[in-house]
Amino acid sequence: MAADLLQNVHTRFNLLTGEWVLVSPHRNKRPWQGKVEAAAGLQRPAYVADCYLCPGNHRAEGVANPAYTEPYAFTNDFAALLPDTPAGEVNEGDLLIAHSQKGQCRVICFSPRHDLTLPQMELGEIEKVVTLWKNEFEALAAQPFIKYIQIFENKGEIMGCSNPHPHGQIWAQSEIPTELVKELHQQKAWFAKHGRSLLADYLDLELKKQERIVCENEHFVALVPFWAVWPYETMIISRRQVADIREFTVDEQKGLASILKRLTTRYDNLFQTSFPYSAGMHQAPVNDGAHPEWHWHMHFYPPLLRSATVKKFMVGYEMLASPQRDITPEMAANQLRGLSEVHFAS
Amino acid sequence: MAADLLQNVHTRFNLLTGEWVLVSPHRNKRPWQGKVEAAAGLQRPAYVADCYLCPGNHRAEGVANPAYTEPYAFTNDFAALLPDTPAGEVNEGDLLIAHSQKGQCRVICFSPRHDLTLPQMELGEIEKVVTLWKNEFEALAAQPFIKYIQIFENKGEIMGCSNPHPHGQIWAQSEIPTELVKELHQQKAWFAKHGRSLLADYLDLELKKQERIVCENEHFVALVPFWAVWPYETMIISRRQVADIREFTVDEQKGLASILKRLTTRYDNLFQTSFPYSAGMHQAPVNDGAHPEWHWHMHFYPPLLRSATVKKFMVGYEMLASPQRDITPEMAANQLRGLSEVHFAS
Ligand SMILES: O=P(O)(O)O[C@H]1O[C@H](CO)[C@@H](O)[C@H](O)[C@H]1O
Ligand SMILES: O=P(O)(O)O[C@H]1O[C@H](CO)[C@@H](O)[C@H](O)[C@H]1O
Repeated sequence: MAADLLQNVHTRFNLLTGEWVLVSPHRNKRPWQGKVEAAAGLQRPAYVADCYLCPGNHRAEGVANPAYTEPYAFTNDFAALLPDTPAGEVNEGDLLIAHSQKGQCRVICFSPRHDLTLPQMELGEIEKVVTLWKNEFEALAAQPFIKYIQIFENKGEIMGCSNPHPHGQIWAQSEIPTELVKELHQQKAWFAKHGRSLLADYLDLELKKQERIVCENEHFVALVPFWAVWPYETMIISRRQVADIREFTVDEQKGLASILKRLTTRYDNLFQTSFPYSAGMHQAPVNDGAHPEWHWHMHFYPPLLRSATVKKFMVGYEMLASPQRDITPEMAANQLRGLSEVHFAS
Repeated sequence: MAADLLQNVHTRFNLLTGEWVLVSPHRNKRPWQGKVEAAAGLQRPAYVADCYLCPGNHRAEGVANPAYTEPYAFTNDFAALLPDTPAGEVNEGDLLIAHSQKGQCRVICFSPRHDLTLPQMELGEIEKVVTLWKNEFEALAAQPFIKYIQIFENKGEIMGCSNPHPHGQIWAQSEIPTELVKELHQQKAWFAKHGRSLLADYLDLELKKQERIVCENEHFVALVPFWAVWPYETMIISRRQVADIREFTVDEQKGLASILKRLTTRYDNLFQTSFPYSAGMHQAPVNDGAHPEWHWHMHFYPPLLRSATVKKFMVGYEMLASPQRDITPEMAANQLRGLSEVHFAS
C-alpha cells in the first residue's frame, strides 16, 4: 500500500456504490467555532408516562401499546409508505416522471425499558430483537408486492430520532430504492466476473491486512470500510454469504446480537456519550428471483467527528459535489479498536 | 397530470442525477417531539473583533485580512484540497482503490459587514459578489490541472457554517466529482437524443405549466424542481444555455444578482428567520473539451421543514435507501411564490 498517498489528499472508491469519497487527512487540525450539539446523556427513567413507546401508554392516534415485556413491533401511525396506495404513473415528455409506491412502515421497540439502548441491554435481550427482525422480515416478504425491506435505527436526537425510547424501524416497499440499486449493480458485476461475492473477497483482504478491523466473532466482522464517508462509519459483514436475515442460523443470530453489543459499546466509549448513529441492514431484494451476488451487511453512519458535541457536516461541497472526510478510515479504526468493550457507564 | 397520483405516496425521477426521491404527501401531519434548533437571529454587530473574516482582523494562521471594502477572496487556511499533493494511485486486487487529488480552496467574503447576508445586501453589492465569482472562476480555470470548480455557500450554523460573517467558498479540483459525473451523464444523454439541453426543455415545460415557478426575470428562473428532495429546495436556471459563469454578459450578471436577492428574501420571509441553506452552482467541467450539453444552474438545499426550528432529517431510511420528502414540491412552490420580496426585517 502506498502509505504516502493515503496521508495526502486523495479519493477512495466505494466498492458497494461505485462512487468516490474525498479524503483530506490533514484537515482535522482546523479549529472549530461552529455549531456545538448537546451531548446525549444516559440518565433517563425506566418508564415515562407520556412516551408513546412505553408499554401500556397511548400512542398519537389513540391506540394503546400492550404491556409488552419483550421487543414489540407495530405499524407506524405516521407511515411514509402505505399498503393501499393506488397504482399510477406520470410521464410528461420524459421530463416529469413519477409513479406510485406502496409499502408498509413498522416500528420496533427494542425493550420495554425507556432508559436503555442496544449497548446497555443484556445480550439475551438483543437476541430477542434479532429474532423479531427476522420474524418481521419474514412476514413482510410474504406479501408478494413487497420488493425491498429496509431495517434501520435512527439513534439520538441529532439523527432525527424523535423519541429516546430504544427503537428502530422497518420500511418495506414495492420497489428497490436508489442506494440498493447501486449496491445490486456493483455486487452483480463482481459476481459475474469472479464467481464469488464482492464482500467475501473484500472481507478476506481486510482480514489479511488487519488495518481497518474493529472487532470480530465466529460469524461476523465489524470494520471501518476503506471508503467510509462518516468519520467513524463502520460495517458489519457476515462471514458466511447470505442474502438476508432469514438464512441466519440460531448461532449466527446470537453472533449478530453479540457483535452489535460489542460495536455499539465501543461507540459509546469513544466519546463517553450515548453515541448517535443511523444504522441499517442491506439485504437482497425479495420476491425478485435469486440473488446469488448479494452478501448481507449492515452499515453504521454516525455523525460525530471530534467529540460528543462536534459533528461532521455533510453540507455544501458534500451535497453538491462529493462526500468528504477529514480523519482517515485507518485512524478511525485504530481508535475504535483500542477501546474497551465494557460500557463506560456500567 | 395525474393529480391523484401526486397526492398519494409516489417516487419522482431526478432528471439531473438519474436517481429517485420518495414523496409522502400525507406524512407532514405527524406530530414532532424531536430536536428543535435555535432560530437564527438577524441581530449581529457590523464588526466583530475576533471574527477571522472581518476586515483587518487576524486569521487562524496569523495572516491579517486587508481592510477590504468590497467582496474579498483568499485561499482557505484549512483547505481540504491542496495544489501540491503528489500524484499517486493504489489498487489492491480491485478492492482497495484510491488516487491522489489536487486542488485549491478559496473563501469569498461577500461583504465587509459582519451583520449582513445576501438578502440584506444592496443589489449593487451582490453584483460585485457575482463579478468576484466570475473572476475567481476564470483564475482557477486558467490552471490546466483544474477540471472542476465548485462555487458554494453554507449559510447558517445548522448547515455547518462556522462563522456567520457572510461568505461562501470555492473548491477547485483535478477531477470531476460524483454528483457532477451523474449530471454530465444525464445531460449528455438528453443532448445526444434531442440536440437541445435537458434544462432548456425542462424549463420550457415548467414555464408552460406554472406550477413550480417561484420567481423569474429576463435572464433567470427560480423554481422548485419536480424532483426536489429538501422541503423548500429550489433551483435557478439561466434562460440562455451557458456552460459556466464566464459566459454571462454584464446584463446576465446583474440578473443573477437580482434573482439571488429576491429568492433569498423569500426564504428569509418564509419562517421570518435568517434562512439556512447550502447552495451552489453546477457548471461544466473546465480544461475538459467542449460541453455542448451543459446548462448552467444553481441548487439551493435548505434543511428547514416546518418552522425556523424544525428541520427535515435525512437519516436512516434516506441514507440507506433513498431520499424522502413529506410536503410536495408543488405545495412548497406555492408557499414560496406567495411570499413578499420585501425582507421582513427591513
Ligand atoms: O469549510 P468550513 O466552512 O469550515 O466547513 C463546512 O463546509 C465544508 C464544505 O461543505 C464541510 O466539509 C464541513 O464539514 C463544514 O463544516
Ligand atoms: O420516523 P421518524 O423517526 O419520526 O423520523 C425520522 O426517521 C425517518 C426515516 O429515516 C426520516 O424520514 C425523518 O426525517 C426522521 O425524523
